[in-house]
Amino acid sequence: MATPTADIGLVGLAVMGENLVLNMESRGYTVAVYNRTAAKVDEFVNGRGKGKKFVGGKTPPEFVASIKRPRKIVMLVKAGQAVDDTIASVAPFLEKGDILIDGGNTHFPDTTRRMKELAAKGIRYVGSGVSGGEEGALKGPSIMPGGDETAWPEIKPIFQAIAAKVKDTDGTEAACCDWVGPEGSGHFVKMVHNGIEYGDMQMICESYQLLRDVGGLSNAEVQQTFTKWNKGVLDSYLVEITAEIFGYKDPETGKDMVDLILDKAGQKGTGKWTVDAATEHGVPLTLIAEAVFARCLSAQKDERVAAAPLLAGPKVAKVADKTQFIADVEMALYASKVVSYAQGYALMAAQAKASGWTLNNGGIALMWRGGCIIRSAFLGKIKEAFDKNPKLVNLLTDPYFAGELGRAQHGWRRAIAAGVTGGIPLPALGSALSYYDGYRTAALPANLLQAQRDYFGAHTYERTDKPRGQFFHTNWTGRGGNTTSNAYNV
Amino acid sequence: MATPTADIGLVGLAVMGENLVLNMESRGYTVAVYNRTAAKVDEFVNGRGKGKKFVGGKTPPEFVASIKRPRKIVMLVKAGQAVDDTIASVAPFLEKGDILIDGGNTHFPDTTRRMKELAAKGIRYVGSGVSGGEEGALKGPSIMPGGDETAWPEIKPIFQAIAAKVKDTDGTEAACCDWVGPEGSGHFVKMVHNGIEYGDMQMICESYQLLRDVGGLSNAEVQQTFTKWNKGVLDSYLVEITAEIFGYKDPETGKDMVDLILDKAGQKGTGKWTVDAATEHGVPLTLIAEAVFARCLSAQKDERVAAAPLLAGPKVAKVADKTQFIADVEMALYASKVVSYAQGYALMAAQAKASGWTLNNGGIALMWRGGCIIRSAFLGKIKEAFDKNPKLVNLLTDPYFAGELGRAQHGWRRAIAAGVTGGIPLPALGSALSYYDGYRTAALPANLLQAQRDYFGAHTYERTDKPRGQFFHTNWTGRGGNTTSNAYNV
Repeated sequence: MATPTADIGLVGLAVMGENLVLNMESRGYTVAVYNRTAAKVDEFVNGRGKGKKFVGGKTPPEFVASIKRPRKIVMLVKAGQAVDDTIASVAPFLEKGDILIDGGNTHFPDTTRRMKELAAKGIRYVGSGVSGGEEGALKGPSIMPGGDETAWPEIKPIFQAIAAKVKDTDGTEAACCDWVGPEGSGHFVKMVHNGIEYGDMQMICESYQLLRDVGGLSNAEVQQTFTKWNKGVLDSYLVEITAEIFGYKDPETGKDMVDLILDKAGQKGTGKWTVDAATEHGVPLTLIAEAVFARCLSAQKDERVAAAPLLAGPKVAKVADKTQFIADVEMALYASKVVSYAQGYALMAAQAKASGWTLNNGGIALMWRGGCIIRSAFLGKIKEAFDKNPKLVNLLTDPYFAGELGRAQHGWRRAIAAGVTGGIPLPALGSALSYYDGYRTAALPANLLQAQRDYFGAHTYERTDKPRGQFFHTNWTGRGGNTTSNAYNV
Repeated sequence: MATPTADIGLVGLAVMGENLVLNMESRGYTVAVYNRTAAKVDEFVNGRGKGKKFVGGKTPPEFVASIKRPRKIVMLVKAGQAVDDTIASVAPFLEKGDILIDGGNTHFPDTTRRMKELAAKGIRYVGSGVSGGEEGALKGPSIMPGGDETAWPEIKPIFQAIAAKVKDTDGTEAACCDWVGPEGSGHFVKMVHNGIEYGDMQMICESYQLLRDVGGLSNAEVQQTFTKWNKGVLDSYLVEITAEIFGYKDPETGKDMVDLILDKAGQKGTGKWTVDAATEHGVPLTLIAEAVFARCLSAQKDERVAAAPLLAGPKVAKVADKTQFIADVEMALYASKVVSYAQGYALMAAQAKASGWTLNNGGIALMWRGGCIIRSAFLGKIKEAFDKNPKLVNLLTDPYFAGELGRAQHGWRRAIAAGVTGGIPLPALGSALSYYDGYRTAALPANLLQAQRDYFGAHTYERTDKPRGQFFHTNWTGRGGNTTSNAYNV
């Protein structure tokens, strides 16, 4: 058998895999590639990979043998069974100390399980989120590895070489890749990233609908607006590509492409998983939940078309002062974004606590700062907030963000009120404001809720005038008895 | 061994169990009772059960032997392990054809599992939701049984005798108990009931905060308002007890009880499960999700108290026309409630489809019409809607409710806008309006979202000017290649 020449191997030549290996190769690494459908390997090596340092493997043993020890193999295949199948096909040819890295969107408990299974065979397992889409994979993605920490020094040079680079808050250059933590924490953080991405995209869509239907902006004006926003507090990849999308003409019809795309969005694993983690830990992750549900509602296209003539709306009065309105919507998007990240960080803290992980909050902001879909200037401010106070309980209460929210709230409220009055659905922007107003409310009306629960279910309550931890029950009707509930859980 | 004398048995003498057996006994049935802690049996039989037709069992075999064949045994124990433990303690003494009924708040997949396990031993298993709290259990709860349908004729007389009675839409008297469907469908419908209950309670709390903080109403005025609402479209148990709660004085201090209760609400299994089912099936169940998260936020009391002085809010201007404002809030509560039930029914339809169940939508409304926590006049209208059109896709589009929403929307919008402007969190009422406006929007801004997904992830999209089911990809940047995504799922 030939001497192994590859520095790293990759299984799975879909769009992300192709671009990721082209990225690695461009940094000087020789990369072994393998795909279940062997034709894909030839197609790539003789196509986009032609004349470059790729070693195509026709079979798992041939592929594994072409990689230098300890072998580092990245899997970029569909989350779920395909990962287990890939492990089963490759692992028999690995040796103790070799490193298997799952770079897909795996649900984090699966990564924890696989890490334990492979550790028993002496194989080091890493679950690494990779974000950035096609473009990011090619030019420098955000990479979030977690798992067997002994693998980190081995993969760090390659991973940090291919990752996006940003200026850190101290002015030095930093790679958007660092060690996240144990077990499935890398995939967990990537999952939250994806949930946040759901939120960011939905907020941008709602802002677009406000601008279009209340502001009366043309596509060209929407394009100009997002271009301008991209130079301010909203400076970010998604705002940037939104501006580009509004400038794109369909080559076939010459019409604005955005107007020809069906308003029916898909939603898959990661958004749902993020919401499920939030309900599991009792963390109010309202914005992402609304964003996931908004995609579900968009998918009910036929129902909406049928309902539209049956359900009455208000007359939408176009705004008088377009410039002011655009500024208000900008503040709504900005402030809601702060809320969404605050909720995401609260979820990460809850999961870390439950799993016994220590997560580096600032480091996560830095990893997301560049390369990935949610990259933004804004994440630099989040890094700063956690640098200043690593124990910050909620991002909203960081002095910088609290000040920004105080400044933004007036426009935010006006924009939401315009949507409410004008019949524009604002599930994400509206829920963000409700969370902000809820979080800053010392006395919520849940006193009534507790009274109701005690009234009908003897659930007991605490009192404002007695020490916490004492529970009281009132026999409200005089008929219920004094037995408190232990079987009936509402 | 003595001749069995009991018509039915019950395991679990907490508050619900006690009241349920007192209800059965009052209808002429002899009831065997058993509790893991034997002292509780004596306490009950010699206490609230004294002089009545109860047979206390000291051990499982003694308890089982005291019940006539085929034995019917209701378990009212904490959901989870306690149900399995109870089954394990009782089942060895049962015979083929005996019936075990779980009356607790079990997660419905557990019921499906247990039904199959016990069917293998010839024991008929029923999972039955029971709602109504202490009071309902005693005087007539809502009962939602599902599982082994051959058990229904055996338990129907007792169950319908103890259930609440209401006038059906045709004027006849009907019991709030009917057969729901196969497997865990009874517990599933009860779970959705509980989710709806979360929503109803949260909406009432938000209405209360609007009345208090924007309307400037005193507790006495809030009491009068809910009393009046209970005579109109909002006629319901929860509105009724809310009025009573606002009239209750703390015997110790003489103050209004509601003001002494800590605003920190608990949330347990069923609300979370309902939201999880919604994310599982991709059903936008926004209102209940917001209600669950609102409880989570209320539980973060210390964080809120700390955040309150740090986060700026608007000055809350009290309303000029209090009467109009109260009417607006009533419409907000009413319309949001229609949305919540529409969402809940949509979830039931999705689960039924996934599980191969046929659910009787009208029958479910009738079961909830009386006896349970969410009972209301309003559910009679839902029954009517499904009587008229059993295939109604969404409750919002029923002609009666569509008309009501059209009438309510103006006040609804004014009330939400007052909260948005005034800094009052309205997560449930606000998300309901967003859903209404989303559901009646033929063209949502998800066209932009699909463009974004295709831009960064090659996810493809459908076009408005081409037949559905054709998927297109644009190489937006000219650099990404034409490979579409199959590994990278956002």
